[in-house]
Amino acid sequence: MSPDRVRALLERVARGEASPDQAMSDLVKLPFEDIGFARLDHHRRLRTGFPEAVWGENKTAEQIAGIVERYAAAEELCLVTRVRPEVAEQALDLVARGRGAVYEPTPRLLVAGAPLPPRGRGPIAVVAAGTSDLPVAEEASRTAELLGMTVDRITDVGVAGLHRILSVRERMEACEVVVVVAGMEGALPAVVKGLVSRPVIGVPTSIGTGAALAGLTPMLGMLTACAPGMTVVNVDNGFGAAYAAAVIALDRS
Amino acid sequence: MSPDRVRALLERVARGEASPDQAMSDLVKLPFEDIGFARLDHHRRLRTGFPEAVWGENKTAEQIAGIVERYAAAEELCLVTRVRPEVAEQALDLVARGRGAVYEPTPRLLVAGAPLPPRGRGPIAVVAAGTSDLPVAEEASRTAELLGMTVDRITDVGVAGLHRILSVRERMEACEVVVVVAGMEGALPAVVKGLVSRPVIGVPTSIGTGAALAGLTPMLGMLTACAPGMTVVNVDNGFGAAYAAAVIALDRS
Amino acid sequence: MSPDRVRALLERVARGEASPDQAMSDLVKLPFEDIGFARLDHHRRLRTGFPEAVWGENKTAEQIAGIVERYAAAEELCLVTRVRPEVAEQALDLVARGRGAVYEPTPRLLVAGAPLPPRGRGPIAVVAAGTSDLPVAEEASRTAELLGMTVDRITDVGVAGLHRILSVRERMEACEVVVVVAGMEGALPAVVKGLVSRPVIGVPTSIGTGAALAGLTPMLGMLTACAPGMTVVNVDNGFGAAYAAAVIALDRS
Amino acid sequence: MSPDRVRALLERVARGEASPDQAMSDLVKLPFEDIGFARLDHHRRLRTGFPEAVWGENKTAEQIAGIVERYAAAEELCLVTRVRPEVAEQALDLVARGRGAVYEPTPRLLVAGAPLPPRGRGPIAVVAAGTSDLPVAEEASRTAELLGMTVDRITDVGVAGLHRILSVRERMEACEVVVVVAGMEGALPAVVKGLVSRPVIGVPTSIGTGAALAGLTPMLGMLTACAPGMTVVNVDNGFGAAYAAAVIALDRS
Amino acid sequence: MSPDRVRALLERVARGEASPDQAMSDLVKLPFEDIGFARLDHHRRLRTGFPEAVWGENKTAEQIAGIVERYAAAEELCLVTRVRPEVAEQALDLVARGRGAVYEPTPRLLVAGAPLPPRGRGPIAVVAAGTSDLPVAEEASRTAELLGMTVDRITDVGVAGLHRILSVRERMEACEVVVVVAGMEGALPAVVKGLVSRPVIGVPTSIGTGAALAGLTPMLGMLTACAPGMTVVNVDNGFGAAYAAAVIALDRS
Amino acid sequence: MSPDRVRALLERVARGEASPDQAMSDLVKLPFEDIGFARLDHHRRLRTGFPEAVWGENKTAEQIAGIVERYAAAEELCLVTRVRPEVAEQALDLVARGRGAVYEPTPRLLVAGAPLPPRGRGPIAVVAAGTSDLPVAEEASRTAELLGMTVDRITDVGVAGLHRILSVRERMEACEVVVVVAGMEGALPAVVKGLVSRPVIGVPTSIGTGAALAGLTPMLGMLTACAPGMTVVNVDNGFGAAYAAAVIALDRS
Amino acid sequence: MSPDRVRALLERVARGEASPDQAMSDLVKLPFEDIGFARLDHHRRLRTGFPEAVWGENKTAEQIAGIVERYAAAEELCLVTRVRPEVAEQALDLVARGRGAVYEPTPRLLVAGAPLPPRGRGPIAVVAAGTSDLPVAEEASRTAELLGMTVDRITDVGVAGLHRILSVRERMEACEVVVVVAGMEGALPAVVKGLVSRPVIGVPTSIGTGAALAGLTPMLGMLTACAPGMTVVNVDNGFGAAYAAAVIALDRS
Amino acid sequence: MSPDRVRALLERVARGEASPDQAMSDLVKLPFEDIGFARLDHHRRLRTGFPEAVWGENKTAEQIAGIVERYAAAEELCLVTRVRPEVAEQALDLVARGRGAVYEPTPRLLVAGAPLPPRGRGPIAVVAAGTSDLPVAEEASRTAELLGMTVDRITDVGVAGLHRILSVRERMEACEVVVVVAGMEGALPAVVKGLVSRPVIGVPTSIGTGAALAGLTPMLGMLTACAPGMTVVNVDNGFGAAYAAAVIALDRS
Repeated sequence: MSPDRVRALLERVARGEASPDQAMSDLVKLPFEDIGFARLDHHRRLRTGFPEAVWGENKTAEQIAGIVERYAAAEELCLVTRVRPEVAEQALDLVARGRGAVYEPTPRLLVAGAPLPPRGRGPIAVVAAGTSDLPVAEEASRTAELLGMTVDRITDVGVAGLHRILSVRERMEACEVVVVVAGMEGALPAVVKGLVSRPVIGVPTSIGTGAALAGLTPMLGMLTACAPGMTVVNVDNGFGAAYAAAVIALDRS
Repeated sequence: MSPDRVRALLERVARGEASPDQAMSDLVKLPFEDIGFARLDHHRRLRTGFPEAVWGENKTAEQIAGIVERYAAAEELCLVTRVRPEVAEQALDLVARGRGAVYEPTPRLLVAGAPLPPRGRGPIAVVAAGTSDLPVAEEASRTAELLGMTVDRITDVGVAGLHRILSVRERMEACEVVVVVAGMEGALPAVVKGLVSRPVIGVPTSIGTGAALAGLTPMLGMLTACAPGMTVVNVDNGFGAAYAAAVIALDRS
Repeated sequence: MSPDRVRALLERVARGEASPDQAMSDLVKLPFEDIGFARLDHHRRLRTGFPEAVWGENKTAEQIAGIVERYAAAEELCLVTRVRPEVAEQALDLVARGRGAVYEPTPRLLVAGAPLPPRGRGPIAVVAAGTSDLPVAEEASRTAELLGMTVDRITDVGVAGLHRILSVRERMEACEVVVVVAGMEGALPAVVKGLVSRPVIGVPTSIGTGAALAGLTPMLGMLTACAPGMTVVNVDNGFGAAYAAAVIALDRS
Repeated sequence: MSPDRVRALLERVARGEASPDQAMSDLVKLPFEDIGFARLDHHRRLRTGFPEAVWGENKTAEQIAGIVERYAAAEELCLVTRVRPEVAEQALDLVARGRGAVYEPTPRLLVAGAPLPPRGRGPIAVVAAGTSDLPVAEEASRTAELLGMTVDRITDVGVAGLHRILSVRERMEACEVVVVVAGMEGALPAVVKGLVSRPVIGVPTSIGTGAALAGLTPMLGMLTACAPGMTVVNVDNGFGAAYAAAVIALDRS
Repeated sequence: MSPDRVRALLERVARGEASPDQAMSDLVKLPFEDIGFARLDHHRRLRTGFPEAVWGENKTAEQIAGIVERYAAAEELCLVTRVRPEVAEQALDLVARGRGAVYEPTPRLLVAGAPLPPRGRGPIAVVAAGTSDLPVAEEASRTAELLGMTVDRITDVGVAGLHRILSVRERMEACEVVVVVAGMEGALPAVVKGLVSRPVIGVPTSIGTGAALAGLTPMLGMLTACAPGMTVVNVDNGFGAAYAAAVIALDRS
Repeated sequence: MSPDRVRALLERVARGEASPDQAMSDLVKLPFEDIGFARLDHHRRLRTGFPEAVWGENKTAEQIAGIVERYAAAEELCLVTRVRPEVAEQALDLVARGRGAVYEPTPRLLVAGAPLPPRGRGPIAVVAAGTSDLPVAEEASRTAELLGMTVDRITDVGVAGLHRILSVRERMEACEVVVVVAGMEGALPAVVKGLVSRPVIGVPTSIGTGAALAGLTPMLGMLTACAPGMTVVNVDNGFGAAYAAAVIALDRS
Repeated sequence: MSPDRVRALLERVARGEASPDQAMSDLVKLPFEDIGFARLDHHRRLRTGFPEAVWGENKTAEQIAGIVERYAAAEELCLVTRVRPEVAEQALDLVARGRGAVYEPTPRLLVAGAPLPPRGRGPIAVVAAGTSDLPVAEEASRTAELLGMTVDRITDVGVAGLHRILSVRERMEACEVVVVVAGMEGALPAVVKGLVSRPVIGVPTSIGTGAALAGLTPMLGMLTACAPGMTVVNVDNGFGAAYAAAVIALDRS
Repeated sequence: MSPDRVRALLERVARGEASPDQAMSDLVKLPFEDIGFARLDHHRRLRTGFPEAVWGENKTAEQIAGIVERYAAAEELCLVTRVRPEVAEQALDLVARGRGAVYEPTPRLLVAGAPLPPRGRGPIAVVAAGTSDLPVAEEASRTAELLGMTVDRITDVGVAGLHRILSVRERMEACEVVVVVAGMEGALPAVVKGLVSRPVIGVPTSIGTGAALAGLTPMLGMLTACAPGMTVVNVDNGFGAAYAAAVIALDRS
């Protein structure tokens, strides 16, 4: 609450237009719902323009169902990420399926509520270096679409055959943001950023073995890469990259 | 060069409007200048909208001077980052100072050419968690200004006293992008992203000792942090964060 | 045994009030019980004011049962931590259930003997950043309760929505010690320590992926965090944090 | 500010006993002082019972002098940690020495303002495993003394000669908290916690080579150690351990 | 496409010997086949002299079958590496077995198409330090054979019994390249390079425990080893070592 | 073969007492048996005084059976370490059980041939810090016994209750070598070396979680520990420690 | 010494053509020169076709001078690598400069003896990603030249501007081996291997900061990279890469 | 003090042969001298058969001088390890040189008191892989000699030229213990252990760069190596290896 709004509220109290109790309520009310094992941040969309997202990997089916139930009741979009298929099935059995919650197995997303309406200044490119990176890329693509963005999917354009990435340079340049998903040594985002003028977000994946260090090597490589204009998210975090891309591409006019 | 332009060029050759030699020159000319120890990418600005930047840390004064000389001759802005004072002094002695190259000691930037004209959709916030993080924050601020952005500098608002960061929430919200510079455990960017709707770029710094692992701990922490809409750059990379912020905030209308 | 007690014993021998054999027995008797595969430290509670605790993760059901049996026989409280459900079931089958040993699945504790009587100067707050951190938080809460402490459980107050943690500041301040359980980047303990005057103990959890390094990143982050007055325990070590909190909060008057 | 105090303030406004401007000032005034490169948290002592401490390692002499000057002006105790001798000398030259700021070289502390009055429930033991650990132990001892605690210094009682640590068991037991400083493999805190009933805080030091990993090995070892009732701080962080010990030992009656 | 060929093509257009469309097609056609989830690089063999290889570990049976199908249709050799038996079985069920694709369980290779004809200047030695290293060694041996090389397999010649490796020195010297597969501490390649004049490629394996760090220790050891003339590939990467050996041993006359 | 023996052999050839072929055979015969997938070092016992040992963890039941068969045929003792129960059962089914090979499940040893006759200068102490360390300790104890040593087993004497280790000091001092097995932070070997004059070999175990880094932390701690006269083996390597202890304790008179 | 040569020697002894002493001398003479602090391997060139190389980084000037002196006396080429300028100056003062030993400051090589005569099947390409990588690249180039190879130096062709590397594809293809030197994220070797058919050796450099981990990140990245036909050497090891390239390119006809 | 001695003492008190005060003194007297900043363990030699050693690296010249002074006064041998030349010079100036303390620069040892008399069962071999490893090897050699052992020094026998190590096999076999000092990848100790029957202690050194990880790679490699009968000490710890070797080789008859 801004100083201006505080002053206005106090003046209304001074003028008798608002009771101390009403002002009290406005000043200190807690903008979340406490359901015991979680505090649901219903005001997040108001505050940040985007809906709540829930980390599903270490939650029980009961906890996920409880959270989804309340957001569905409030008619708000809610994304639960990294949900294993068997947990998703149990959770969906616990909420009324009629509420429209669905599970998407490739990106491992459980979604309640309708996608946001279109509101991007332009599409978001989601580029995957290899076929093995597809699940992470699809987590990114679906997240972006649910947040109201259009997506241009580009797949299997790794640096070992440069002609593949060169052939899609113009498609990438036509997007607002380019999300680049790559495992192994993670060289693709820097190569892409050297080709296009748009912001690039690198997503390292855990594809690879030994020296790949389960995705840490491409993550460190992307952070080290010298192509300016590029930023990075955590290993396999397609959701986070797409969310950041949507924040950047949001049409605020 | 796009397929359309290739076809148009070929049709001009077929119609005799262009000689094979002219077309040849257009098709294969190398868009860089070879000065022996470096290949200067004069077309980068054309290609990406932003000027060339040079990693200064491991270059000799002679190399830096040679590079600056050529960009200055081409009347292009050129930033050399991470230049130690004594190397900067030597390099500036080697180029004609009259060309206007200058060294800024706090951000350790050596700059040739005029700043770009104003061209942001709005200001960029550069937030520093502590006073010790100021050199990195200043590298970010000056980079953004040289790239044509206005900057709102906010300092010493670490999470150990939350009232400090809460007091500047609206200043941050008013910016296009928020760059958050933090050492130690690097918690500030996630806290900021929870407060504002704008894109946040976290810059871990090497401030701290022992478990801080020379900046790797805040870097890993920022990548792990669960506030969606935030991305990360390398340790102490104020330049890279500001560059990415400028790409995002660029007014393309 | 203190020098004063040694001198007193020797004087009793010199006066003939104690035989050398009796003194010998007092001086060198071993304050533990050897049951072959373990030496049970029955005197620990006398020496440190707190009962024995047993690391259950790498023990067989037979070993756990043997240890529980002997402590139950001695009517002493004994906690076995990190016991998997199937091992607990086997172990409980091996001891006489009538002895009152029970298994609590969420905190994975196997408990023999009655909880200690209330003896804290005030409650211990156990704060969990997210719903996924609940098993570790519950290990802490139940440990504290068994050690004679009262507990105030506070859940899902992570830093991405600061209003949640701000809303419980006074509850935390009213406690003797605040145990803060957090995974991902582990920023919450430092934020809490900035808000309250009480000792804070941070418990990193293994919730997170990639850069979270299975809990090492929040552990390193908490150790690095600059909020003075805060200490740290091992990843997922809710037991150890609660035990330390109980030692601190113990009413010794 | 608590809800009760907010309600009371609002009622005073409603009754005309306070003007909106006065209430406004109370509600939104920022509890820190902005001196450009830092925001001084003068209210920290009020909020947490302990004074501000400043990380000195990466600050310039000018920054340290500016901060010390303002705290001295406010007649508040201020500790600047990890200040190198040459920086301390420059900083002290920049502030009026008459203000009483002094530099202590062994613990590398720069101190402004008078120590807090005695206020501990009992002494704090500061135990150093070896002579090489003395600088870190002295940082802990002096910090505790400045915060109003009495200190019992015990030195060179490493585990390679157990009779040394056994000979001081009763001295340690007589203290409120035991801070144990140890480099190399860092085994001492666990041994101490097995001997005494008081809370133990382990401080790993960077003494050692090769496998010691500059202090990370004793830090990891202390976190892993199985003696319950022990917590850990960062490598070489004698200040943090003593600060936490003082928070624990504080006489709040 | 080289400048000479570009010029020649343009002159043919100028002379009317080629239409703009034909030239366009030659200049910009994409040398890969897009099958939706993958872009098949049929021209790789033309470009590099060796066929395409596909990383099988993180692909579904459907994806592997799709890729194999297309290469088989084009009558090109295609190696899919690191395929688990159950995935291989599913994939082979999905393609027409009549196409001749086969799975080799020890090296975990799925192969479509005929081996290349003999074309090495001499044999490749594949040396395994221990029996446990055989699966990786066999991945190397079969890869080399499929690429047209002859292989001399030498097994169980680790450094703990030097007479074993000394007894095969002349067999190794008679080869064009020596691939040395070793787990544990990975000392064998350096010992071999000290004995022979041929190029040596070290392949660290994940055999070992604890300090072996799942193969990182032998990998780091081989990179550090001082025997010049030796290079290294990733942990367990028998395929990559053999491929590189084949490139070196290729008879280009 | 020593120079003296070479000279003697050559003189016998010169004198016609040996044919070149016989000498050839002596000089270059390979002291191992090649069974295809392994080269059995039957001369190891002659060369080093101790029998062959085989790493069982990554071998198939067929490979283990093949190796055991040949050593049993040669009536030599052979130890196969780290064999999982199901693999051991398969392997034993493949060799004639009548040959006397047996599997010991706790130490996971598969043994063929009779134990060596007693030949130590004195017993070897095998000390386990906790009950969870017993499998590794038993691997050490059984290895030592099979190599002809007597063993004094001491269990559950961790540093958290020092009186337990102090009570067995004289038993340890009476041994030739003391093997100390400890997980968690691994402090016990250094404490033991401070108490006794005999050589101490530390065996870190993988007991512990989080900061224990699967045994790397106690391993690093033991290497760092300042008690001179102590050496270290790999994580969980009870076999290697006992083998080294037997080499040290061997009665060579 | 091969079995054939041993048999021939023995037959000469049997025929009285060689005395036992002569044969003895041939069989057991040590193929190195012992100069107290070093054993010089004068036979290395005979054995491996390449001269000895000496690690200079941790040697004193006296040691380097002693080694150089003996190789110069034997008229053999000797390379001392990683020699700091001040050490080189001292060492050269200690040997007679007339012997022709010289120091090359950029590659930090101290060289005694004449370069080997030309003997490569073709040139070696030494490609440097950036100007900062030049010292390592020059160490590679000079090593190759001294070993009798011709070198094609290509500089500043990093992946951020792909047109630079594409422009030299044919120059690289015309070489026997391509050594690619790259710091930062180290993406260049994989990109190069995707473009050419020749063997590629990647040399990671320590250029970069933070996440670059002093060269470990590009080293890990190159090992992980999926372009088959590429191998890797240690960080900054231009010498080792060039030596391996020379072994590969050696004309043995 | 053993139970037998306690009982005897008590019986003497019962018989009036000893006063309680005398017995008290014997029972609880502290077997060390407290000199303020250190507790000198004069009884160590009695307890363990070997004199005290002091870690010199992080001590001031004043502390070292104080410690040396007291041991010299007690006519006991005292070794201070890892003393830098300038600190040694200052320390020696502070003690009376007449006491005979000397500094040995290559092994960086400061020694007070006379070497122990000869008392080994046989010599100790100290083997250095390369000339660069000499300082660590010399620390081992001098330590062993001061502890009463004879030493056989063997230098520059690294695995890249196996004939060098093979030529000294019998010299090594003739020793009681073999200490093997090796940097780079640290392969030598395992090779040596495969050649000789004596106990081998590996000492990794910090010689090497990049992947050598400042000695961690050879340390990990030695711990992983499969040659049984070998143990390991910390990086560069020649002192510790020699001390352990002397404990093993001690003639106790």
